[in-house]
Amino acid sequence: MDFDVIKSLLNGRKEEKIVLLVLDGLGGLPMEEGGKTELEAAQTPNLDALAKKSMLGLQEGIRPGITPGSGPAHLSLFGYDPLKYKVGRGVLSALGIDFDLQKNDVAARGNFCTVDGDGRVTDRRAGRIPTEITERLCKLLCDKVDIPGVEVFLEPVKEYRFLLVIRGEGLNANIEETDPLVTGEKPLPAQALDDKSEKAAEIVQEFVRQAQEILADESPANMLLLRGFAQLPDWPMFPDVFGLDPLAIAMYPMYRGVAKLVGMDSPPASDSYEAEIDMLEEKWDEYNFFFVHIKKTDSYGEDGNFDKKVHEIEKVDALVPRILALDPSVLIITGDHSTPCAMKYHSWHPVPVLFYGKTCRTDGIAEFGERACRQGGLGVRFPAYDLMALALAHAGRLEKFGA
Amino acid sequence: MDFDVIKSLLNGRKEEKIVLLVLDGLGGLPMEEGGKTELEAAQTPNLDALAKKSMLGLQEGIRPGITPGSGPAHLSLFGYDPLKYKVGRGVLSALGIDFDLQKNDVAARGNFCTVDGDGRVTDRRAGRIPTEITERLCKLLCDKVDIPGVEVFLEPVKEYRFLLVIRGEGLNANIEETDPLVTGEKPLPAQALDDKSEKAAEIVQEFVRQAQEILADESPANMLLLRGFAQLPDWPMFPDVFGLDPLAIAMYPMYRGVAKLVGMDSPPASDSYEAEIDMLEEKWDEYNFFFVHIKKTDSYGEDGNFDKKVHEIEKVDALVPRILALDPSVLIITGDHSTPCAMKYHSWHPVPVLFYGKTCRTDGIAEFGERACRQGGLGVRFPAYDLMALALAHAGRLEKFGA
Repeated sequence: MDFDVIKSLLNGRKEEKIVLLVLDGLGGLPMEEGGKTELEAAQTPNLDALAKKSMLGLQEGIRPGITPGSGPAHLSLFGYDPLKYKVGRGVLSALGIDFDLQKNDVAARGNFCTVDGDGRVTDRRAGRIPTEITERLCKLLCDKVDIPGVEVFLEPVKEYRFLLVIRGEGLNANIEETDPLVTGEKPLPAQALDDKSEKAAEIVQEFVRQAQEILADESPANMLLLRGFAQLPDWPMFPDVFGLDPLAIAMYPMYRGVAKLVGMDSPPASDSYEAEIDMLEEKWDEYNFFFVHIKKTDSYGEDGNFDKKVHEIEKVDALVPRILALDPSVLIITGDHSTPCAMKYHSWHPVPVLFYGKTCRTDGIAEFGERACRQGGLGVRFPAYDLMALALAHAGRLEKFGA
Repeated sequence: MDFDVIKSLLNGRKEEKIVLLVLDGLGGLPMEEGGKTELEAAQTPNLDALAKKSMLGLQEGIRPGITPGSGPAHLSLFGYDPLKYKVGRGVLSALGIDFDLQKNDVAARGNFCTVDGDGRVTDRRAGRIPTEITERLCKLLCDKVDIPGVEVFLEPVKEYRFLLVIRGEGLNANIEETDPLVTGEKPLPAQALDDKSEKAAEIVQEFVRQAQEILADESPANMLLLRGFAQLPDWPMFPDVFGLDPLAIAMYPMYRGVAKLVGMDSPPASDSYEAEIDMLEEKWDEYNFFFVHIKKTDSYGEDGNFDKKVHEIEKVDALVPRILALDPSVLIITGDHSTPCAMKYHSWHPVPVLFYGKTCRTDGIAEFGERACRQGGLGVRFPAYDLMALALAHAGRLEKFGA
């Protein structure tokens, strides 16, 4: 949907509250033919009762058959078509570790790697060195690298992976990656892909040259590779496009980061689901859009632990009455993508949606599950980024289009 | 759908007839939780029997969550994506009162208003003067305004509202509105927003200057405000795009107007549903596409009168056998948008569609209602502008695409 159309229809109402509750990796599959999915197997009396007063459906975060990463999947739920609003990997990497990226910073994802005497890559991951070694190497490089006129930040991420950020004036990030992606080749030069990125490319090349010297005597991580050069995007902001005051409540930096990318407030959050709902209650009067993120459904999906994923869904079900007690005008409960335990990974399978709103034409289906959602009035396989306009409509915030 | 694709596939068949029967504001909501919608509550034996031999579904006129105005909603039913084919307010205003707008005319919506001694707006609607006063003032201005080289038309619409049309050579309508939208400000100058519109803008400014003098001694309507400058759009015409000879049968000027906008014939119509069907029968051999518009379902929706809306639907049901007796190849029965009595206003809720065609893969659902349509083979929440290609297909008028 064209953001300009939505903006042109906003009527300025502010009172009605919208809650978007995201159970990460919610969608699932049966473990055996004819079995139930995780959501179907879970005992969810509160969700089932709410389903009866709601509309159900199955959404897709990106496009049919495309498995969403967490960043694009959340953008889609926030109303941004992820094929139009692309986030560079460097930026996602910064969001994932809560690095406070500034406008104009150039960020990249880095690997420590191993090179031979000729400088050819022999192991792109330096034997998957543990995070502690990466921490030490990042600190070493931060202390020793010296490039006039810019600040250089290196932050460990996990194992051999780190974040590189260069801060200075006049930097642009259209820069070729240095990772040759195969062994036996030398790292590639960080060439500028347009004129505006010349300055940053030269700085990156100087950084790589100094890093090579500093790391020369280390083993096995005696070199580094850089990918996904990116800057904070210059997008229409969520509060402006949708006329909402949004708050993101999430335990993990990645999700707060994506929310902040579109202009949501997101204070460091709480360490339990209960604490997340505490924050929702506490901030209820200050905001009118709330994104609440539940992480562990995805984690247990990736572990392939069916029973634990079911149990996490049941824990969320128990919290639903606390959300309803706040009397939201719209409550959307869905996932960012599917993470079937049977696959132990994100998947492209459509994600169940329960859409509760006071003006809903209800389906009357008293169950929240994949098969139930297939029968619902929201439809199957619709784009997740359509949900925001529906939320605004049911919150009474949109004028009619044309006379 | 790309019009060029459709045009390239037309096979020139002419005999098969298509009827599009639009019950304005058809879609509804239950008045209480678990209740029936207007269409579900109506006793519709003919529609139910036809549904069994048809495909059902739920369409959206514009986009998910967007409440359609009547103009854009009908364009969508005629196959035109209303976000691509936008009609200016001035043109819609002309259509709404059956003014015979010509190509290149510049039309605007006007308000009579009240200004103080400094020329500042004190009431944008001049105390909502009755239509009779607006009639007199329009006539007064028509008689006295004199601008060489152009014709000026003023037509009363309702209460303080009127239509302004300027007819002449070389006019374009990209002109700033003069309505400041708030009281305490002076009317804005009608500035041209591009070079091509300079001439028309100067004429509008001269018109406003003369009008101010002529109205100076009137009370309370001593000035006017102009909005929505627009011209007839230069669109692909319906007969050309779809290879059809279309006739629009409607009681109200607005709907005949939108139909004429895309090139349909539309003689002044009849004052009852029976008379509309009389005209359908009478013109059956002359045309091969018929748009028949039923107004009162929407009117009773806006009144919130559930029983009367139900009754209007039942009256239409009684006419269905007369339409079927004509043996159309395709009969589509739907609304332009929902007007739930529970909301007393147009809404974004998807609109039931009954699609009867001799080559339909039928659903076998013997009921025409919102919940029944949710189960249908047309799907839920599909764009209304997809219906025309389906109609052509079931009328045997489209060749296959590619070899």
